[in-house]
Amino acid sequence: MGEPVDVCTLAERLIECPSVTPASGLVFDCLEAMLVPQGFAVTRFTAGTPPDGPVENLFAVRRGPPGSRHFAFAGHVDVVPPGDGWSSAPFAPVRRASPGGDMLYGRGAVDMKGSIAAMIAAVATVPADAGTISFIITGDEEGPARFGTIALIERMAADGERPDLCLVGEPTSVARLGDMAKIGRRGSVNIWLTVEGTQGHVAYPHQADNPLPRMIALLAELDSLELDQGTDWFQPSNLEITDISVGNPATNVIPAKVEARISIRFNDLHSGADLAQRVSEIADRHGAIARPVISGEPFLTPPGAFSSLLADAIIAETSLSPELSTTGGTSDARFLRALCPVIEFGLVNATMHKRDEAVAVEDLEVLQRIYGRVVRAALVD
Amino acid sequence: MGEPVDVCTLAERLIECPSVTPASGLVFDCLEAMLVPQGFAVTRFTAGTPPDGPVENLFAVRRGPPGSRHFAFAGHVDVVPPGDGWSSAPFAPVRRASPGGDMLYGRGAVDMKGSIAAMIAAVATVPADAGTISFIITGDEEGPARFGTIALIERMAADGERPDLCLVGEPTSVARLGDMAKIGRRGSVNIWLTVEGTQGHVAYPHQADNPLPRMIALLAELDSLELDQGTDWFQPSNLEITDISVGNPATNVIPAKVEARISIRFNDLHSGADLAQRVSEIADRHGAIARPVISGEPFLTPPGAFSSLLADAIIAETSLSPELSTTGGTSDARFLRALCPVIEFGLVNATMHKRDEAVAVEDLEVLQRIYGRVVRAALVD
Repeated sequence: MGEPVDVCTLAERLIECPSVTPASGLVFDCLEAMLVPQGFAVTRFTAGTPPDGPVENLFAVRRGPPGSRHFAFAGHVDVVPPGDGWSSAPFAPVRRASPGGDMLYGRGAVDMKGSIAAMIAAVATVPADAGTISFIITGDEEGPARFGTIALIERMAADGERPDLCLVGEPTSVARLGDMAKIGRRGSVNIWLTVEGTQGHVAYPHQADNPLPRMIALLAELDSLELDQGTDWFQPSNLEITDISVGNPATNVIPAKVEARISIRFNDLHSGADLAQRVSEIADRHGAIARPVISGEPFLTPPGAFSSLLADAIIAETSLSPELSTTGGTSDARFLRALCPVIEFGLVNATMHKRDEAVAVEDLEVLQRIYGRVVRAALVD
Repeated sequence: MGEPVDVCTLAERLIECPSVTPASGLVFDCLEAMLVPQGFAVTRFTAGTPPDGPVENLFAVRRGPPGSRHFAFAGHVDVVPPGDGWSSAPFAPVRRASPGGDMLYGRGAVDMKGSIAAMIAAVATVPADAGTISFIITGDEEGPARFGTIALIERMAADGERPDLCLVGEPTSVARLGDMAKIGRRGSVNIWLTVEGTQGHVAYPHQADNPLPRMIALLAELDSLELDQGTDWFQPSNLEITDISVGNPATNVIPAKVEARISIRFNDLHSGADLAQRVSEIADRHGAIARPVISGEPFLTPPGAFSSLLADAIIAETSLSPELSTTGGTSDARFLRALCPVIEFGLVNATMHKRDEAVAVEDLEVLQRIYGRVVRAALVD
């Protein structure tokens, strides 16, 4: 067990390091300086090439006795751009009193430097011989994420590091700290559709071939698909048409080409490749070309020992029984699932990605205690 | 009967006056100088205000004996921009030998300065006491046409001028001079469609309202409409979807708005207003707003005395029996129909609006003779 550390002070130090995605350098120096005194061996490396790289990543491990269990915290130190209109400088953390208690303001306060601070402060309360603890931290989660957590997982595999459980510190709480954890995420695939025809004058349609009716029929068929009715743990998969583009300013011209784009968020009844194939077959019947880009496959850590252990810790500290959800966008948990069971739990996300991002100081302290309970329970399990 | 005039020389003089739409000044001076020696009283005036005006127009009349019939030629002296790549300067008319006989090159050779030259040369062969002959000539047919032939018709009405028949000199022949005349034109209406929704994240579709499915259902319904099956003289009315526009670059965003545009070319079973109303009602059912702009109503001069007289003249000079068609785009005949029965007949349109626009010199001479026969027959009819 290292020196006791104040979670709010740690959060402030991390927020002080500007780290708009992709993050590198200073914020990792700061993180390393927090982990080393706690007995962690820190490995930092960059991965990738332009345009989506290079990206800085950090893996830190504090090894327990041989054969002991291995618990991993995962997260990111990059933040989204602060934007304008802040009440105080976004990278100058400041505590201000509010009716509900002190709030700490700064970009990354909830997403997710506050959460990383809570992890480190929690680990400081766990005896070194309790088991192996690691940190899997990337500088590119908010960006393309091609060379972040993916590269960390590759590096860990090469080094033979394999955690038994992984907790991702994304801000999953909605109204109050502890009201929601994520035990899975839907997959995501975007598909670009193109129908080509032959341009011509509207007065002579038989000399042209209007691609728009084919695209409209295709999109109508795609929009009518019922992919599934949901599962015990997932909403029904959903397809949205997100763009159509012709760009024909001439009222008397039949255009030569139309492009469209759909986005499918899908549960674990599907894979991205299966959906891409299904859409491609429908597109083909309408004379369209489909180009899919899979952003993430769905994952589910079915409710069980890990979620119970987390729920117990949350109930003990907040009296709230967390909803185990699979809603929302994608996160790096979609990659970490390859390692071991993964659950996401963190701060209240109301201000994430917004101006005046802020965390309740008390929430930081409660989250530290929840994380501490989780680690201790996970390592003795 | 005035001095004999050479049709090709007249055409060359008109082509020499650059007159990209809207035309004014020089080309009208040139036209006036041709008409006055033939005994015409010429009235020139400008109409309209920016952006679609002012436009110069010319009305010329050679009055026959009181109570005699009145035959009108109608047309335009403006031309479309020449564009690049001409073999010779577009406004420097030049005759070149070709296997089929001499060709006269220049912008407007067929659309429709050559035709106006043939009208003037034809009139020179008609005795002054045969009846009243007029020229209804605008400088804006190829442009917005808001202040061209419409203004001429208003002026004629104010002056009590009302022809019995009107021949428009548009280049209606397709492969050979005389193979087609136009006894009508379809109407045209463009309708802009807008569906609004509520923007949101694709991962949370229940918090958004995607306007695209409604627009797609609307366009699918419009595309499936069978407006009619055509008439004895008209093709079936036709609806084309000409544009759809969202402009949403973000793959994870449900857009707030989609716009589309349709173009309907319709026969005399419909009016522009009726179709606009019908589309608006369908749009309304899909939560869309429809904004129609009617470009022209259909017209038909049913086959009869006028078309027979024209066909006889064409057969006599070419041995071709002209197809009486209503195909193609709109023309100023859509306005002139308000005056009297209107038919369009002119040169071979293969090179109109293209580079190296050219007319066969022999066609100019044959067209002059056809027009001469038509005028003489029309005035004694």
